[in-house]
Amino acid sequence: MQNIPFDRALVDEIIAKNKIKSVGAASIREVKKIIDDVESATGEKFVRMEMGIPGIPAVQLGVDAEIEALKNGCAAIYPDIYGTKELKHETARFVKNFLDVEVEDDACVPTVGSMQGSFAAFMTIARLDEKKNKILFIDPGFPVQKQQWNILGIETLHFDVYDYRGEKLEAKLEEYLATGEVAAMIYSSPNNPAWFSFNEMELEIIAKVANKYDVIVLEDLAYFGMDFRQDYSKPGVAPYQPTVAKWAKKFVLMISGSKIFSYAGQRIAVMVISKDLFDMKTEHMKKYFTQDCFGRAIIFGSLYALTSGTAFSPQYALTAIFKACNDGSYNFAEPLKEYGIKAEQMKKALVENGFKIVYDKDLDVDVADGFYFTFSYPGLTGEELLSELAYYGISAISLGVCRSTRTEGARACVSLVPNEMIPVFAERVKKFHEDHPIK
Amino acid sequence: MQNIPFDRALVDEIIAKNKIKSVGAASIREVKKIIDDVESATGEKFVRMEMGIPGIPAVQLGVDAEIEALKNGCAAIYPDIYGTKELKHETARFVKNFLDVEVEDDACVPTVGSMQGSFAAFMTIARLDEKKNKILFIDPGFPVQKQQWNILGIETLHFDVYDYRGEKLEAKLEEYLATGEVAAMIYSSPNNPAWFSFNEMELEIIAKVANKYDVIVLEDLAYFGMDFRQDYSKPGVAPYQPTVAKWAKKFVLMISGSKIFSYAGQRIAVMVISKDLFDMKTEHMKKYFTQDCFGRAIIFGSLYALTSGTAFSPQYALTAIFKACNDGSYNFAEPLKEYGIKAEQMKKALVENGFKIVYDKDLDVDVADGFYFTFSYPGLTGEELLSELAYYGISAISLGVCRSTRTEGARACVSLVPNEMIPVFAERVKKFHEDHPIK
Repeated sequence: MQNIPFDRALVDEIIAKNKIKSVGAASIREVKKIIDDVESATGEKFVRMEMGIPGIPAVQLGVDAEIEALKNGCAAIYPDIYGTKELKHETARFVKNFLDVEVEDDACVPTVGSMQGSFAAFMTIARLDEKKNKILFIDPGFPVQKQQWNILGIETLHFDVYDYRGEKLEAKLEEYLATGEVAAMIYSSPNNPAWFSFNEMELEIIAKVANKYDVIVLEDLAYFGMDFRQDYSKPGVAPYQPTVAKWAKKFVLMISGSKIFSYAGQRIAVMVISKDLFDMKTEHMKKYFTQDCFGRAIIFGSLYALTSGTAFSPQYALTAIFKACNDGSYNFAEPLKEYGIKAEQMKKALVENGFKIVYDKDLDVDVADGFYFTFSYPGLTGEELLSELAYYGISAISLGVCRSTRTEGARACVSLVPNEMIPVFAERVKKFHEDHPIK
Repeated sequence: MQNIPFDRALVDEIIAKNKIKSVGAASIREVKKIIDDVESATGEKFVRMEMGIPGIPAVQLGVDAEIEALKNGCAAIYPDIYGTKELKHETARFVKNFLDVEVEDDACVPTVGSMQGSFAAFMTIARLDEKKNKILFIDPGFPVQKQQWNILGIETLHFDVYDYRGEKLEAKLEEYLATGEVAAMIYSSPNNPAWFSFNEMELEIIAKVANKYDVIVLEDLAYFGMDFRQDYSKPGVAPYQPTVAKWAKKFVLMISGSKIFSYAGQRIAVMVISKDLFDMKTEHMKKYFTQDCFGRAIIFGSLYALTSGTAFSPQYALTAIFKACNDGSYNFAEPLKEYGIKAEQMKKALVENGFKIVYDKDLDVDVADGFYFTFSYPGLTGEELLSELAYYGISAISLGVCRSTRTEGARACVSLVPNEMIPVFAERVKKFHEDHPIK
């Protein structure tokens, strides 16, 4: 066993052996390899915060439903591309119960994770109008969504929303949408990586500007209900998860089972399409799709061509979980609150030792404690900070990869940090602070 | 109960009510609706041959493995994009045991059905070279693969191979590939819809011309080993499923679990990439991918962006089935032979009653009896034939949708025809013949 910080020569040798420049500049995969090597050379465990993956078991009633469906023979039968009747129905109920928004069963469609949801949406949206086909990213955001547009070969626009919260958001959105080139905009709320949440006023602004310029809003609800400052977990009872769907005419909501139900392994999510968008028709789309409206084009064109639907048994899992949430027999927020408790403790240890929370406020209130938080250390860039933290057995990823302008920052995910490692984390952070006096 | 043919007025009324022009020109979905309505109005069951879906239960040892993996907690964990180590290894063993081709474990990657396999391959291939990005379809073929290119907005070329079997294939391929515009070609063997199989000479020609013009070959093995004229089901023992991989430098093989293991519901397949293709680098691809070679671009670029990997539990299912095939403890061909027996009986009934088999020969020998067959009736177009057969309680799809030039033909899939319906089929075909004397 080694003391913290690790022997620098030992760590540097491992870095050199793995042929990377610095830990702060390495990919997640490279970081993982370095950590494995350092852990094995020192006998010490890292506090691992680089991966945004669930840290608790999948919701059991989903697993049970899936096993039952397999026993009943679902593996042999092609699932319908538009999803099972029951999943469509429970999704619409879920959206009514927890977002207070009415949607039709037909508008609710399963996807192979929200990754497929956004890809299918992007691929369809980009074909609606030749001259209005760019997407605006309200950043920071999930890096792979940007990669999806790169692969499709279509231009993207983005801005970091940190300096444009509240009423300032309207003028900033006008700046992009008034050009008439923007087909859609996308954001996540709660936000990955920054864990801020848009409030109702901001969501209403987004909808207002979108409606004015006939722009589609893609709302990524990967962290649905995980802003634990409010209890969004009671069906049909306020407060509800804030959503742009209250005001926007054309929207796609993406609700993933990966984080809120810890169901990442089975690649299951739903997309919810507004009626105005489902029925939308354009001349240009006929070049790419045989279907005659957006809703049919994304389902029978894009989703069919991508994977011919979503695996059958995970659809049963999600149906059972939604149904239990809708019936009030399962509270999805309960097991997730552990993330908030850990985030609070870890942020406290950081702040007490000279660190700053980067995205710290939702306008006048502190951001919630949840799955992610962002942090920095005075005098260091994000890359330097991550490289230096490696000697202290702490890993995270740089905010730069999430297209944040706050390049001094890093994103931490609390999910994989065991409770017993939190005092260890506090100690390492204290030692780091002692070794790096702030000038 | 009604006699065959059904009362024409009754059927015509149902067709009119469903607002379609004719059964022969309707989509599969429309046909299904008409059939449901006619069945309910007459009390008579159709002989349903329009859908290409498994007619037997999923391989049980796959289902068992999947249930076990779910019990062990796989639902909570993001699967690696490149697939589990065990699945990659068993796939490489399967390719060696049943195709007699050596590939590396790394080259074997799970996909969300072969639908995703071909989409990911197309999307990556189209980005390799701006001027060499067309695909040649050796038709007839699976209609959705063509739709995948439409959505990607890239030009396709195709020809019906019926008149170019054997040595004639070389000059025909030269005609397309010599232009230098073709990036890849695709075909399925055994063929959907025509059920012909390329022989080793033809596959060697395809490889030879592809190698000459540095063109990628996509071989869709959806019906792997289902040419029952030979026994391809013994691991490591000749004869082996014929494959272009014996000679081609750059290839992708797509092996789906949907038909050969009746595992369509769980959307699971593998793609196998040749070493030369995996390592291929081009300047143009850097515009779309951050990865530096085809293999990494298709996995960490395309497959990541499409669905972030393949659902976890179906990977365990496919691993268990491949392993059992490799170990010789499970013979995948046995339960499938039922399809061949049904095809033989049904083709016999047709031929005895004036019908023709459209794609009838593999050069000098009859095509195999298997999952699909193609048929026509003298004096009728495919559309007329299908419309007329509806009165006799028989459904299929037109060869036109499979881009066959043989528009007099229809494709029949035997999988959903119960054994006890085969005498009924024979009777109806006989009645049809009596009512439609050949001039």
